[in-house]
Amino acid sequence: MLSKKIQAALAGSSAIRAMFVEGKELAEKVGAENVFDFSLGNPATPPPASFNRAVKELIDKEDPITLNGYMSNSGYEDVRAAIAENLNSRFATNFTWNNVVMTVGAAGGLNIVFKTILDPEDEVIVFAPFFGEYKSYAANFDAKIVAVAPDYDTFQPDLAAFEAAITEKTKAVIVNTPNNPTGVIYSKETMQKMGEILNSKEKELKKEIYLISDEPYRELVYDGVQEDFLTKYYHNTIVGYSFSKSLSLPGERIGYVVVPDEVTDAQTMLAGIEVANRTLGFVNAPSLMQKAVACCVHEKTDLAFYDKNRKVLYEGLTKLGFTCVKPQGAFYLWMRSPIANEEEFVKTAKKYNLILVKGSAFGCGGYVRLAYCISNEKVVRSLDAFAKLAKEYGLG
Amino acid sequence: MLSKKIQAALAGSSAIRAMFVEGKELAEKVGAENVFDFSLGNPATPPPASFNRAVKELIDKEDPITLNGYMSNSGYEDVRAAIAENLNSRFATNFTWNNVVMTVGAAGGLNIVFKTILDPEDEVIVFAPFFGEYKSYAANFDAKIVAVAPDYDTFQPDLAAFEAAITEKTKAVIVNTPNNPTGVIYSKETMQKMGEILNSKEKELKKEIYLISDEPYRELVYDGVQEDFLTKYYHNTIVGYSFSKSLSLPGERIGYVVVPDEVTDAQTMLAGIEVANRTLGFVNAPSLMQKAVACCVHEKTDLAFYDKNRKVLYEGLTKLGFTCVKPQGAFYLWMRSPIANEEEFVKTAKKYNLILVKGSAFGCGGYVRLAYCISNEKVVRSLDAFAKLAKEYGLG
Repeated sequence: MLSKKIQAALAGSSAIRAMFVEGKELAEKVGAENVFDFSLGNPATPPPASFNRAVKELIDKEDPITLNGYMSNSGYEDVRAAIAENLNSRFATNFTWNNVVMTVGAAGGLNIVFKTILDPEDEVIVFAPFFGEYKSYAANFDAKIVAVAPDYDTFQPDLAAFEAAITEKTKAVIVNTPNNPTGVIYSKETMQKMGEILNSKEKELKKEIYLISDEPYRELVYDGVQEDFLTKYYHNTIVGYSFSKSLSLPGERIGYVVVPDEVTDAQTMLAGIEVANRTLGFVNAPSLMQKAVACCVHEKTDLAFYDKNRKVLYEGLTKLGFTCVKPQGAFYLWMRSPIANEEEFVKTAKKYNLILVKGSAFGCGGYVRLAYCISNEKVVRSLDAFAKLAKEYGLG
Repeated sequence: MLSKKIQAALAGSSAIRAMFVEGKELAEKVGAENVFDFSLGNPATPPPASFNRAVKELIDKEDPITLNGYMSNSGYEDVRAAIAENLNSRFATNFTWNNVVMTVGAAGGLNIVFKTILDPEDEVIVFAPFFGEYKSYAANFDAKIVAVAPDYDTFQPDLAAFEAAITEKTKAVIVNTPNNPTGVIYSKETMQKMGEILNSKEKELKKEIYLISDEPYRELVYDGVQEDFLTKYYHNTIVGYSFSKSLSLPGERIGYVVVPDEVTDAQTMLAGIEVANRTLGFVNAPSLMQKAVACCVHEKTDLAFYDKNRKVLYEGLTKLGFTCVKPQGAFYLWMRSPIANEEEFVKTAKKYNLILVKGSAFGCGGYVRLAYCISNEKVVRSLDAFAKLAKEYGLG
């Protein structure tokens, strides 16, 4: 009765969402205050006050036929201009409104970019561990994900393995830095080398290869690290962005795509993305939200909130004997499972009301992901539960 | 460089959007007040005051982590319950929150339903003239549109032709009543017979055939006609709805899908639609808008505004000698072109600053569509321009 693709998707549904549901069920049993749910990347900080003010002012002052009405499928020109100017002021880029397409979140953005460039059997390279939804998005267009294993010491991409993975079928490469699920930021050196490899492979294979930078965590960086914008490392770079994390608006589905002029035939690409936005059924990014984020484009969420969680968790878990990758950005911590089968470890953790996500959901078994976008108080209290878990595995 | 599908889409892009752009260009030349732009179905009435109040109250009173956060991919349960109760009170149905999935507009809804049920080479029957985007949506899943010609006297579907068009490959049938582009409402008799045909064909072919009711214009009915809800005519009916027209929110992309319990394996279907919402990149319907429309579910737009346009236009054009289908609902008027090649007619109309859309964009040449969702004053003034157009063709 259902399409074959959806039958397959139902069978292998999102491990993150599954754990989120398990966490909710557990909360009903033992009380929400007793469950340490590290499953979902749902921001725990409110949007900035300026966002709420902007929404109310827009409702009061803007012509509703414009504010809630249709516009170009790529979004309002003034909103796109505000975003271009903001990027230019921060990253010394030279974008105009015409380089920016407003999208239904980063997920909508990735799908319209994929629809624009991918033919069946094309290959999309991702770096493990990677956000599992990339697989679904590529499957929407009958393309294939090719995962490149990481350098297990640093969780930077293994660039030799990357170079070897590029074939005539490679159409795109996705990078996600700051990274979900590891919290690692790809170094400038990594990005420079990646750009060099892509440039030389484009020449060798005589074809375009697109670097797609999925940047929902761009502003979530710690320890004084400077935010980066990847279009400077390689000409065929397309950026996808979401305000879900930077302004704590994940439910609102608002983001954008940037196609720099340096991309080959950039205008044709932008025209394709606009058509894809319409025909895939997004039509346009939600209109009031477009106008609202344009008013808050200089704002960001309370980073100190996440930083506190990051430090408590990394230090606490390390002290307990767990092996963790030190998070540099985003709000994820990547921890080695004390046993090879991390699914077993996730089950054991649940006994202590700890909800973790298995690394195999990110194409990298033997590890687990903790989304530390929960209250500071809970993070602190969770360490008792982790202590019991550590003891069970003879750590520390 | 671009995918083959997007190259094809760029070549045959939306005629409606193209005329909308032509109208805007013309407005820059001769002044917006002098252009009679009947191209786009963009509501001309503001949202009800209760909508603006609801948005501001939600912003002031709701917990932002909930209001702007992730929820189930199918939407907030309380919002879905409010919609189910509203439908039950109006149409004597028995829905619960579980029968309703919140979607990114009707376009998002149709795409996730299509993704859930369509395999490559499946056939989707539509009744000409039909909304051209159905073709793009079916193409997203490599399915084919099969258009059934209308009864040219009434523009009700030709049910004998419909019955003959159903094959073993038929997976779905789309109805859209009140209809875009004709403004016709399918009669109860039409819907009853269609249900009977589908029931008997399901038995004969031993397979499920889904009737997809695309209902963005459900509440836009005139002359005291009663609103209808199609799930009573056939068990395998899935409803797609949008608040774009009823609450004048087309830019906000907010709608829903209803899967009644009577649909075969309804729970599996709902699970599939939820997964499709996530994996196609919609993730969920915009969160603040979900909550806002739930507060306004009993409201509708100022129908008297459109009714006035409808009457002025239908009477005026008929008096000038044009042959029009009398609109019963929506905000479209369907007019026969005085010459067989209606594309020529559309070009000639543009000389008089009249922006119309060719019928072939709806799979029905020889006709044009007028979207009369523009100001009353403009509709009245447009009749002088139509008079000149009529004269050029020797009408009246």
